Amino acid sequence: MSNKALATEFETLVGKDNVLTDATDLHAYSYDAAVLDQVQPAVVVRPTTSEALGKTVKFCNDNGFKVTVRGAGTNLSGGTIPHPGGVVILTTALDKILELNTEDLYAVVQPGVITAKFAAAVAAKGLLYPPDPGSQAVSTLGGNVAENAGGLRALKYGVTKDYVMGVDFFDVNGELVRSGGKTVKCVTGYNLAGLMIASEGTLGVFEKLTLKLVPPPAAFKAMMAVFNNVMDASQAVAAIIANQIVPATLELMDNFTIRTVENFRKAGLPVDAGAMLLIEVDGHAAQVEDEAAKVEAICKKHNAQSVRVAKDAAERNAVWQARRDALPALARVRPTTVLEDATVPRSKIPDMMAALDRIAKKYNLTIGTFGHAGDGNLHPTILTDKRDHDEWKRVEEAIDVIFDEALALGGTLSGEHGIGLAKSKYMKNELGVATIEYSRRMKSVLDPKGILNPGKLLGPLLG
Amino acid sequence: MSNKALATEFETLVGKDNVLTDATDLHAYSYDAAVLDQVQPAVVVRPTTSEALGKTVKFCNDNGFKVTVRGAGTNLSGGTIPHPGGVVILTTALDKILELNTEDLYAVVQPGVITAKFAAAVAAKGLLYPPDPGSQAVSTLGGNVAENAGGLRALKYGVTKDYVMGVDFFDVNGELVRSGGKTVKCVTGYNLAGLMIASEGTLGVFEKLTLKLVPPPAAFKAMMAVFNNVMDASQAVAAIIANQIVPATLELMDNFTIRTVENFRKAGLPVDAGAMLLIEVDGHAAQVEDEAAKVEAICKKHNAQSVRVAKDAAERNAVWQARRDALPALARVRPTTVLEDATVPRSKIPDMMAALDRIAKKYNLTIGTFGHAGDGNLHPTILTDKRDHDEWKRVEEAIDVIFDEALALGGTLSGEHGIGLAKSKYMKNELGVATIEYSRRMKSVLDPKGILNPGKLLGPLLG
Repeated sequence: MSNKALATEFETLVGKDNVLTDATDLHAYSYDAAVLDQVQPAVVVRPTTSEALGKTVKFCNDNGFKVTVRGAGTNLSGGTIPHPGGVVILTTALDKILELNTEDLYAVVQPGVITAKFAAAVAAKGLLYPPDPGSQAVSTLGGNVAENAGGLRALKYGVTKDYVMGVDFFDVNGELVRSGGKTVKCVTGYNLAGLMIASEGTLGVFEKLTLKLVPPPAAFKAMMAVFNNVMDASQAVAAIIANQIVPATLELMDNFTIRTVENFRKAGLPVDAGAMLLIEVDGHAAQVEDEAAKVEAICKKHNAQSVRVAKDAAERNAVWQARRDALPALARVRPTTVLEDATVPRSKIPDMMAALDRIAKKYNLTIGTFGHAGDGNLHPTILTDKRDHDEWKRVEEAIDVIFDEALALGGTLSGEHGIGLAKSKYMKNELGVATIEYSRRMKSVLDPKGILNPGKLLGPLLG
Repeated sequence: MSNKALATEFETLVGKDNVLTDATDLHAYSYDAAVLDQVQPAVVVRPTTSEALGKTVKFCNDNGFKVTVRGAGTNLSGGTIPHPGGVVILTTALDKILELNTEDLYAVVQPGVITAKFAAAVAAKGLLYPPDPGSQAVSTLGGNVAENAGGLRALKYGVTKDYVMGVDFFDVNGELVRSGGKTVKCVTGYNLAGLMIASEGTLGVFEKLTLKLVPPPAAFKAMMAVFNNVMDASQAVAAIIANQIVPATLELMDNFTIRTVENFRKAGLPVDAGAMLLIEVDGHAAQVEDEAAKVEAICKKHNAQSVRVAKDAAERNAVWQARRDALPALARVRPTTVLEDATVPRSKIPDMMAALDRIAKKYNLTIGTFGHAGDGNLHPTILTDKRDHDEWKRVEEAIDVIFDEALALGGTLSGEHGIGLAKSKYMKNELGVATIEYSRRMKSVLDPKGILNPGKLLGPLLG
């Protein structure tokens, strides 16, 4: 079928305005937030109803067209880079909050609802949707579920997975498959909702999501603890958990990141500090007071130079502004920013930080590290220039070694950024061949023509 | 192969003492806690090592033997009833806690570890493993994961699913498949650990489980609120949640259950009460005080006759003894006890209680209802005699209607007891044909000979 004939077919399914084939449009959907080569689709289709979405999926399968479903394209592992000449299905017009139930503490949403808009709608009803990935201002809930997005509050509140009560999705035949639902407890049938989480669009196309809501904390307190070195900061993290305090947020920034952020905003950060911890405790007001005092004492016991507890909303905001600045500040330093995601059990953070230091020296690279110290999810960020072939080769070698180190420490390739195209070749190092084969068998029967986001997560499939 | 030859083959895999073929043994493993017909296996095999477990699975698959993996057999839906002439693999000798990590808040266990023993080992380290199914004194963690066991604390703490970080399992070829792990965040590969949860032994055989631990609450307070009728009690439940209080436990008992429990133990329960709520709040001491006072006020506002707050451990224990007595007390009334599990969004509890009342009258049956009001997971318990064919026919009809009512209220067939043999025929009413077909396709390729717990969850498979 010619691209023109193809477009006409899609137009009958989703309407003329929702089929994009212009060169600029195809370019706009040829990449995502990962540092990978662009790939142009043949057509971009934007269904505005569930029915049209189901029909679009069926039409693609009937014709063997490769499909990549895309929300905001903020993922960092190439999960939304299209197949060459394939179809991109945009979910951005499927953006309705279908139900927000304050009695039973759940919401039902279409996949294209923007995370932050949803969180705000939930907050307006006096409730909380905790998952807060860095891209929440633009990311979609469908993308969050497909990638199992994390965020800053995962230590206490968990990740997207912990808030998915149900997923309804279209199989490749355009039939609606249902799993989970509106009850806190549900064991009816396979946990297909669970299987959809982090499946990166390779097993089905989300029609709607049922998400769990919780009461918000009554109080919270943010603080910033400054350390001479990463080791002291890491040991303070371990001691906080050992004292059975689970902060909502427990973030680390290394010296390079602190200096870069300060250079970016001039907020008065301690540029000589070896590391900073940014911490927030929340809950009942008395608990927050107790825990803040304990955290302060623990940090000081582990040689914190200073611990500043935010006294008001402005001071609290300053703490989190510093954290939010980390990635944009680092990204300005060099033309190419490689944001890694290797994750280790939290007690292994000192080892992982030491390994990153060794790796940066050995490969002569600039690595700024910040991230979610409380849950062992670090973001070593390599600042480089992809056009410098020599340096880029060293970057690629360094990434390999970073993964080896994380796995050797009992960790994982990816805490929250996904496998996508970027990491599929490393999967067998962590999971072994039998796991990949089990997964491929499953994929082969659920998507026999291999139309759903080919090449992602499992790598190229045979046949 | 004759049963004798078969036994000899298994003996080479697991040792002579671990192959059971006596009539009494085969009888002992022919049933579980569901009210269903007994089915005798040909042989019961008890591997004592992971290696032997994997080889046993492979041997069964090579020979096309049907396998039912069994822990304590406490499930209530027939999930551990063997295939006629099939193989039962007992996990009871795989009962080691392999690691209990207090720094990183996880444990790694073999599937045969008994739930309560594990919880005690965790408590001895100053931590908490929250899932507390009613059968925890004898149930195994493998069984809990295979059934996604719930319990009394699910309202605040969630169910087994919320504590599974990783599952390593053997596929039918005896190859070890790994999923998840020791990090709080992990998105490497498909969420196969999630898929294993509630899969009732039909997709793989668990080798080991990685489970999440949490700090225990610093304080708790139990209370008993007595109401004239179920409607007032149900509205108090809704009001507690609406006031953003999430108790650890929020249980309901109807008048019939109260009277039966009192008859059983003479603990001084209010036998004229229409309903009782048994509630426990936990957390920081100040939070517990606040929440207990609020819960008391809310109950009184909703016409509670009395609210008794437990003043000490003995009074607290009395509250929970009444709840623990519910099932054993009811079970003594008639020869057959059918414990149902239909679950609705919590705001629909008044409707569900009214429906149960109508159903009991219409079918002239005795139904005592108690359960987890806070999460909408009721346990209507039909007291009957299976030998009375006429009454049993009415019981079966009543069960059908109970499920119809739960689904009509936006609920589910099973909150925590599983589908097993008992409910597979109802599955399509809740999930639709496309969901069953998607699940069957998946099962067909992951277990091509259909050896893993055939007939459970999906019902009889074609081919």
